[in-house]
Amino acid sequence: MITSPDNSQLKLIRKLARKKARDQAGLFVAEGEDLVEAARVSGWGPEVLLRAGEDVEPALLDRVSALGSGSRVIGVYRERWSEPGGQRSVYLHGVADPGNVGTIIRSAHALCDGPVLLGPGCADPYSPKAVRAAMGSIFARPPARARFAELPEWTVALDASAVPVLADQVTAMAPPVVLCVGGERNGLPDEVLRAAGRRARLPLRDGGPQSLNAAMAATIGLWELAHRMAGDA
Amino acid sequence: MITSPDNSQLKLIRKLARKKARDQAGLFVAEGEDLVEAARVSGWGPEVLLRAGEDVEPALLDRVSALGSGSRVIGVYRERWSEPGGQRSVYLHGVADPGNVGTIIRSAHALCDGPVLLGPGCADPYSPKAVRAAMGSIFARPPARARFAELPEWTVALDASAVPVLADQVTAMAPPVVLCVGGERNGLPDEVLRAAGRRARLPLRDGGPQSLNAAMAATIGLWELAHRMAGDA
Repeated sequence: MITSPDNSQLKLIRKLARKKARDQAGLFVAEGEDLVEAARVSGWGPEVLLRAGEDVEPALLDRVSALGSGSRVIGVYRERWSEPGGQRSVYLHGVADPGNVGTIIRSAHALCDGPVLLGPGCADPYSPKAVRAAMGSIFARPPARARFAELPEWTVALDASAVPVLADQVTAMAPPVVLCVGGERNGLPDEVLRAAGRRARLPLRDGGPQSLNAAMAATIGLWELAHRMAGDA
Repeated sequence: MITSPDNSQLKLIRKLARKKARDQAGLFVAEGEDLVEAARVSGWGPEVLLRAGEDVEPALLDRVSALGSGSRVIGVYRERWSEPGGQRSVYLHGVADPGNVGTIIRSAHALCDGPVLLGPGCADPYSPKAVRAAMGSIFARPPARARFAELPEWTVALDASAVPVLADQVTAMAPPVVLCVGGERNGLPDEVLRAAGRRARLPLRDGGPQSLNAAMAATIGLWELAHRMAGDA
């Protein structure tokens, strides 16, 4: 039973709240019984596993939680990265909010068969907030690192200023298709918009907000890919 | 220029991070130039408006920020509540995450014409995290408090265990329609499921997560209402 805050495993967990430490160690933290169970189901073994009251004093575990949620269990895992692939996937460019990146990992796991492709300027998918938002999907379908130039031929970029709507565009496309989504403030940069085969918008009501949250836009886009495109999902 | 942390306006802002204080005062805080500008555009006058370097020392404003984002401006506003209405709206029951509630307020503003209806167990839409997630939509379309029993006849409850899919259900419905969405862990309680006229699910891939994030589910549901239902949105 760990009873000292100077324990090396506790120190590691605290350190992994920082991106630099995660990058150096190639490790990340998952907090809570649901996530640790999801890791087990997906065949991930923890590098460290601390259970409150069994391996460590509960108060000490609380103090290393990055989420402040009083987790009863915290696991440390080795980061994994998928290879791009699948018939339908989503490429993110400049999606800097970790909650959005994690939520999109979860939505993509529910709606399409390829991993989330992370381009420049995206939040670290292994940050505590991203892992919590992705839930078990971070283990079941880890994201991939991707460069836009390597995407398959059929890409469609979400662009609020485009004339065509996504539903019309995707019915004319054949898999593999990659949906490109940018950050909600700046959208996709010009070079991505130019290079994408097609641009399309999600029609919104007049007088409403100019854009959706990036995770909402990506999720609706994947929903349209899943339900309006020919071919097996 | 405010130069003391004991200033009453700074103390008010700090106090309003707590729900109890918001409920007692009927006031809430909006942080950042975008939100304060959105309030102005929607015709909301602030009770208090503090600009860093003009009204208050920047370091003091930083210290009362609930979001820790180094806001240059913070406004205090009086809470407003809409009346239920519109041809399409969403009713939330037990959606306890403030980010989800705020995001749904933004999505509903983009996709449907009625205010978000907040039932029991929902996060306070005027908490700092909810306001930030809702962005300008909190001012353009404030939420309504609602009881399930008061909803219109056409309600459809999202229920992962239902057989019909939402797309098929909504094509057969006429406005006004209210989509009912529960918390992601427990879904909707039995009394709501029993009382709702219809239940429907959002079809997800086999082998994926059992559910979507509550904000994702609500947003896709509203997307389906907007695009698959007869009648004007």
